[in-house]
Amino acid sequence: MVASPVWSVDPRTGQQREQVGTEATAADVDAAVRAAHAAREPLADRTVRAALLRAAAGRLDAASEEIISTADAETALGRPRLTGELARTQAQLRAFADEIEDGAYLGITINHTDKDATPPCPDLRRYKIPLGVVAVYAASNFPLAFSVPGGDTASALAAGCPVVVKAHPDHPATSALTGAVLRGAAAEVGLPADVVGVVHGFEAGVELVKHPMVAAAGFTGSVRGGRALFDAAAARPTPIPFHGELGSLNPVVVTPAAAQERAEEIGAGLAGSMTMGTGQFCTKPGFVLAPEGEAGDRLLAALRDALADAAQGPLLDGRMREAFLAGVAARTELDGVEAPVLAGAGDDDQTVSAGCLTVAASKLGQPQYELLLEECFGPVAVIARYQDEDEISSTLSRLPGNLTATVQLSGGEAAGDAGTGARMLATLTPLAGRVLVNGWPTGVAVAPAQHHGGPYPSTTSTSTSVGATAIERWLRPVAYQDASDALLPPELRDANPLGLPRRVDGRWEY
Amino acid sequence: MVASPVWSVDPRTGQQREQVGTEATAADVDAAVRAAHAAREPLADRTVRAALLRAAAGRLDAASEEIISTADAETALGRPRLTGELARTQAQLRAFADEIEDGAYLGITINHTDKDATPPCPDLRRYKIPLGVVAVYAASNFPLAFSVPGGDTASALAAGCPVVVKAHPDHPATSALTGAVLRGAAAEVGLPADVVGVVHGFEAGVELVKHPMVAAAGFTGSVRGGRALFDAAAARPTPIPFHGELGSLNPVVVTPAAAQERAEEIGAGLAGSMTMGTGQFCTKPGFVLAPEGEAGDRLLAALRDALADAAQGPLLDGRMREAFLAGVAARTELDGVEAPVLAGAGDDDQTVSAGCLTVAASKLGQPQYELLLEECFGPVAVIARYQDEDEISSTLSRLPGNLTATVQLSGGEAAGDAGTGARMLATLTPLAGRVLVNGWPTGVAVAPAQHHGGPYPSTTSTSTSVGATAIERWLRPVAYQDASDALLPPELRDANPLGLPRRVDGRWEY
Repeated sequence: MVASPVWSVDPRTGQQREQVGTEATAADVDAAVRAAHAAREPLADRTVRAALLRAAAGRLDAASEEIISTADAETALGRPRLTGELARTQAQLRAFADEIEDGAYLGITINHTDKDATPPCPDLRRYKIPLGVVAVYAASNFPLAFSVPGGDTASALAAGCPVVVKAHPDHPATSALTGAVLRGAAAEVGLPADVVGVVHGFEAGVELVKHPMVAAAGFTGSVRGGRALFDAAAARPTPIPFHGELGSLNPVVVTPAAAQERAEEIGAGLAGSMTMGTGQFCTKPGFVLAPEGEAGDRLLAALRDALADAAQGPLLDGRMREAFLAGVAARTELDGVEAPVLAGAGDDDQTVSAGCLTVAASKLGQPQYELLLEECFGPVAVIARYQDEDEISSTLSRLPGNLTATVQLSGGEAAGDAGTGARMLATLTPLAGRVLVNGWPTGVAVAPAQHHGGPYPSTTSTSTSVGATAIERWLRPVAYQDASDALLPPELRDANPLGLPRRVDGRWEY
Repeated sequence: MVASPVWSVDPRTGQQREQVGTEATAADVDAAVRAAHAAREPLADRTVRAALLRAAAGRLDAASEEIISTADAETALGRPRLTGELARTQAQLRAFADEIEDGAYLGITINHTDKDATPPCPDLRRYKIPLGVVAVYAASNFPLAFSVPGGDTASALAAGCPVVVKAHPDHPATSALTGAVLRGAAAEVGLPADVVGVVHGFEAGVELVKHPMVAAAGFTGSVRGGRALFDAAAARPTPIPFHGELGSLNPVVVTPAAAQERAEEIGAGLAGSMTMGTGQFCTKPGFVLAPEGEAGDRLLAALRDALADAAQGPLLDGRMREAFLAGVAARTELDGVEAPVLAGAGDDDQTVSAGCLTVAASKLGQPQYELLLEECFGPVAVIARYQDEDEISSTLSRLPGNLTATVQLSGGEAAGDAGTGARMLATLTPLAGRVLVNGWPTGVAVAPAQHHGGPYPSTTSTSTSVGATAIERWLRPVAYQDASDALLPPELRDANPLGLPRRVDGRWEY
């Protein structure tokens, strides 16, 4: 059998740029996983792991020109965006190095012997240990921050788990390049390069999730692909955790008072957020509840004007462009759906133009309109016009789970007037993992308080893929009972030689 | 269709005691889940939840005579054991009330706006909210502590999740009685009684895990039943977390020096642990690696003597007794397996007697001996005799995941001699969620440092079902972005009006 070539393609032209090796066979995947598995022991050293992440950040910086050029050539996301994404990627790596040193993620908990407890309690000491090799499925739309050197890889390495990344076919050259950077960083700090491996090819991804030595998986991508891998992870003889970010509509509610006060600002802001990266963000606001009437009309006019001015651009690949055009067409055909600005094919065979669709919210209870409540990847949003707050609630109750939900409030409402804001937050909270007030969901800050995850299908677990707590996905607790200080790992010794935060006999020592 | 009756059966006689209602139909399950779902809002009050758990503990105490009598009549576990189990159950409820008030489980994290961050960070505030209705599948072997009023129910209520318990058919009367106690406690503190519901019947259990309003499940039971429900949870249109404790062999390693020093004590201790509760603990030590030679022989002699003296007893039901007798017979038939004390049928049709089986560890690499590495529920353990430390490692590498793993060390080894103890801990840690030194795994203390869970099949997730962190299973994070203090829940306000532990701009305020 001849291995299939992996091609880097320029989405601005649709032409092949260069061959990037070949698709991994089952034997290649097995070799990559075994090599990663063998690297667990050296990676168990927390100090070296922090050094690895910082070295990786430094090397990404040193190679930034080549990385940004390569990524731009493969993704057409543009140098400014990719420059920002690379900076973010480095910041993520450094943030996880800080978390390793903080050490609270270890969840160190000690209970000394207590014969008076019910039942009596022996000496118990618990902390968290790495799960093992993590499979990472890279995203199309973030060739850096959610791909080979991205948050899943950074958090897994931080946890002490070697990683095998299944590269996304939309940016294989960037994947190979950044994979080499990470492996170089490992060698620099004295770790085996195989703490990070990269494999290419659809079948390789399927093999990876089934490999007995793979202990967990992280995924960013489509509902269809993510669900198939989730199902495979659950069907294994030994099921493994599958943390997938699958898709999100990211609803926005604009209150009548907000529209009254800021119709033009909201319309323009929406246009900016939904067209950012040519509408290819997982947090793109894809569904907006705007009031009927004059203020809502002004909002729509502002949106229309801004969208008409929006630049055309290529999507990440031809398949996505076809899906976008078909998705817009199917939605536009629905009775009562109008297109104030019709999204569609751009002026050449590669590009698309942004647009929006409108519909009366009262129609959305009918089954044929369910399509409007599904994500359409690319620069389009559905604006549902509502009559009253009941229609907001009933529409929101039909939505699937989301990464984000946003409310646009008036100044008074944002400050607490009439309880509208608190009521809206309470309505939106069950729908999403992040609830925004008077902002736009695109742009996901890297911070301990971040949560990038939400009810299914936006994610397949209750975890986050961005921010400090993303590390929790790759750990499991273990408790030692009646082990002497001499036998315990230093993290669990009474004297706390590493000065780590911990809970001792119920008291927090942070 | 006539609903099937649910019978309470006396395992000491095999006779029906009384009818306890009927099996729940799909409509009954739906009604129970909907009623629980409707109780989410009142249960959102943390103060009331703490009161509920304490009221439940108090009412269990007040009803202790009836509860213990009923449970003993249905399970034959004996009054002393059930008295202890009820005390433990009350302690669990009170411990979770304390955790609610401690509040660290909320994981409150605040990041103030930071325009200089990469990327810039808005105001983000994260904490954890309840998932929704939790389905609890009660265990056969703990009619109280892992059943209706047990740890899954207590932790779910503590998290703010209403519960529908699928009662175990081995103790329906106890389930109905304790369910009524919990519902009475809810009414006492002003909550709807439906914060806890109880349903009976196999089909009801299947309906429950598929119900769209069920948001998560907890299970304690067999690998077969647990895996079937895990698969159903994963196959839902919207998959839900399934935290199952399925089965565990609980290996014990006795070093040569430990056998030399304490052969008789270890033999007697093993007999006590493996026959406790007639061998029906999920933490029963079912597989022991003991050295070949004189010291190991002494250990075995002590074990034999203690087992010969062990009282016969009934198992929880007739089906389990049959499975135990068949399991012992199948293992005894294997070439090279001996039975120094043959476990088997007792002196009457209901009871069984305890025993042990021996085999050379060197045989365990052969496929026909895999049965010896599977749990056999009831009072039997396999003693594998090893020649050297390599044989310990190779045997342990064949074991499935476990709740516990134990090493018996000499005094010197326990204090650190020659690194044997640390090496053994490192070998056992990948196998289990709790690693014990010179103890016995039966008896699971309720403490924040406890971890009762381990690699599959011992559990289906990385979580624990005992101890403070069991609450984490029923929560998901949500982050608020740029919401004013007026809109935020009090837990997330700047002034920290509730005085909760939190992390602010990276600093722990605990």
